[in-house]
Amino acid sequence: MKRFNEQQIINKIIRQSSMVSASNFPPNLKIIKGIGDDAAYWKDNDFAYCTTTDALVDNVHFKSDYFSSYDIGRKSIGVNLSDIAAMGATPLGMLISLGIGENEDEEWIDGFYKGVLEIAKSFNSSVLGGDLVFSKNIFISVTCFGYRELNSNHNNNYFLDRSKAEIDDLLFVTGNLGDSKAGLEILNMDKKVYHDSEKSLIANHLYKPPRINTGIELLKLGLKTCIDVSDGLLIDSKRLAESSNVDIFLNDDKLPVSENLKFKFPKSFKEYAMIGGEDYELLFTAPENLKLKLFEISSDLKINITEIGKIKKGNGQLFVNDELAKIKGWDHFDSIL
Amino acid sequence: MKRFNEQQIINKIIRQSSMVSASNFPPNLKIIKGIGDDAAYWKDNDFAYCTTTDALVDNVHFKSDYFSSYDIGRKSIGVNLSDIAAMGATPLGMLISLGIGENEDEEWIDGFYKGVLEIAKSFNSSVLGGDLVFSKNIFISVTCFGYRELNSNHNNNYFLDRSKAEIDDLLFVTGNLGDSKAGLEILNMDKKVYHDSEKSLIANHLYKPPRINTGIELLKLGLKTCIDVSDGLLIDSKRLAESSNVDIFLNDDKLPVSENLKFKFPKSFKEYAMIGGEDYELLFTAPENLKLKLFEISSDLKINITEIGKIKKGNGQLFVNDELAKIKGWDHFDSIL
Repeated sequence: MKRFNEQQIINKIIRQSSMVSASNFPPNLKIIKGIGDDAAYWKDNDFAYCTTTDALVDNVHFKSDYFSSYDIGRKSIGVNLSDIAAMGATPLGMLISLGIGENEDEEWIDGFYKGVLEIAKSFNSSVLGGDLVFSKNIFISVTCFGYRELNSNHNNNYFLDRSKAEIDDLLFVTGNLGDSKAGLEILNMDKKVYHDSEKSLIANHLYKPPRINTGIELLKLGLKTCIDVSDGLLIDSKRLAESSNVDIFLNDDKLPVSENLKFKFPKSFKEYAMIGGEDYELLFTAPENLKLKLFEISSDLKINITEIGKIKKGNGQLFVNDELAKIKGWDHFDSIL
Repeated sequence: MKRFNEQQIINKIIRQSSMVSASNFPPNLKIIKGIGDDAAYWKDNDFAYCTTTDALVDNVHFKSDYFSSYDIGRKSIGVNLSDIAAMGATPLGMLISLGIGENEDEEWIDGFYKGVLEIAKSFNSSVLGGDLVFSKNIFISVTCFGYRELNSNHNNNYFLDRSKAEIDDLLFVTGNLGDSKAGLEILNMDKKVYHDSEKSLIANHLYKPPRINTGIELLKLGLKTCIDVSDGLLIDSKRLAESSNVDIFLNDDKLPVSENLKFKFPKSFKEYAMIGGEDYELLFTAPENLKLKLFEISSDLKINITEIGKIKKGNGQLFVNDELAKIKGWDHFDSIL
């Protein structure tokens, strides 16, 4: 059985792709970021546009056993819009490719698009098109694009990305961490009856609302660095540290954790918060003097924003309580095969 | 075993999606076409952008038995850029989601991206990003973006589409028809040795270059109506007739057919040309007074352009040699399940 390291493969593709980057566009159309960055974006005179894609596969990213097609539709859109949120972009539209097989009937398809349209609509994002194909196992590939209107004060920072954390910046995260992973584990326990706290954790695994409005406000505030927590706080913090070439110091006492998670997993809730994955919260940096503004955003949007660490001079290391972190987390190729 | 009608499902999604279409964008950003059209596009002050997505699945759209990963990479990009060509857009970039399983190793992945990058590069289109996931069966989902710089004479026709054929227009097609389907049948004969003519037909099935430069010239010429022949001439002509609410009269003596196809299938080459599919040629309409200009484009780009029929007043019917056509062709759900 073969194993892949997704990051190694991606790095190879980046090297091979470099020859394509010198494309010949009109002078007022410019690709700013392409492959190898966390998102792709381009700009013209008035607008910057970003685009991102994510694929979800049955039995890899979700299980049809406990995901209805409606749940799959909602999650597919939520996951993709979370990338748009992490850029601070406003959703423009999306394309959806759906692969389904013999077991999926029209009712299944109706449920899927009900979920898709419910979430797309709630974030004012149009479903612009897609493709529907036969596939032995279900897959969904969503491509979202977002925009930002340009004005004189963008200072060549068109969108948030993961590469501009600065020394002495503080590290913040939205919402709570770890609930999604806890919900997944509860689902896998295959229980007949769930407590309310378990139901809440499960709901967080099935769908987390993307932090679109928060991302837009962070970009408006002039922040530069943000990533969404999709593979677990430790992995995504490490990515941020490496991309920005700084060290990150996390304090695990400060991690925002729900009462439900503490109640259900009183001994291991910190571990869930650190390596859980699929949290789809925004992890971002800001200088200390913007703390007050962040609390205003938090209050306006009714979204918790918690200070969980600090950026220091360094070369991409991650420390938890001043100790070098051992990174654990997701690589679907490692974890599934 | 359940059967789907892709068009019925799509129509249903379109109805459900209508509520999302009234999105609230800045006044200088406007979505022109969304779901239900053959492509999605939007515009700002300076540029119009279009986007399109296609998914390919192993054993549905290609067979790994005779498609190397390099072939799959090339075909995936060619198929998607053909949609960009049919809009008359200039390629901007693309995102690629790849699902692969236990049988695909690093060599496979290298071959795939070699094919992808070769074609992307040859059309000056950047690979902007993508996703790599585990999947029991191989799938590829590609989303392409194209653009057109706006100037004063676009007359609100931003891209070519299938809905603006006018009465008395002539119908044209690029290249030859039927080779790809013939190539597929030869591959399925599982022969040990192939004649040169067979090899050429096979090559046309494995990859057809998208007619990007032709599309750009057609748009520049002020034409409005174009579709790429992906599901067979009859089906795609019928789509054009229905979308434009006109009747189309084809003359099957005029269909451009290669010598290889005639040689290999002397009795049935016309049928291949009419219902073959995967031709990826451009089918478009033009007023008679632009015929000379079309021949100049044909000569400049060294691409055959053949007049094959005429547009008449009507309501979406297709006639071949003045007889109402019986439409046969592709629906992957019908043909595979």
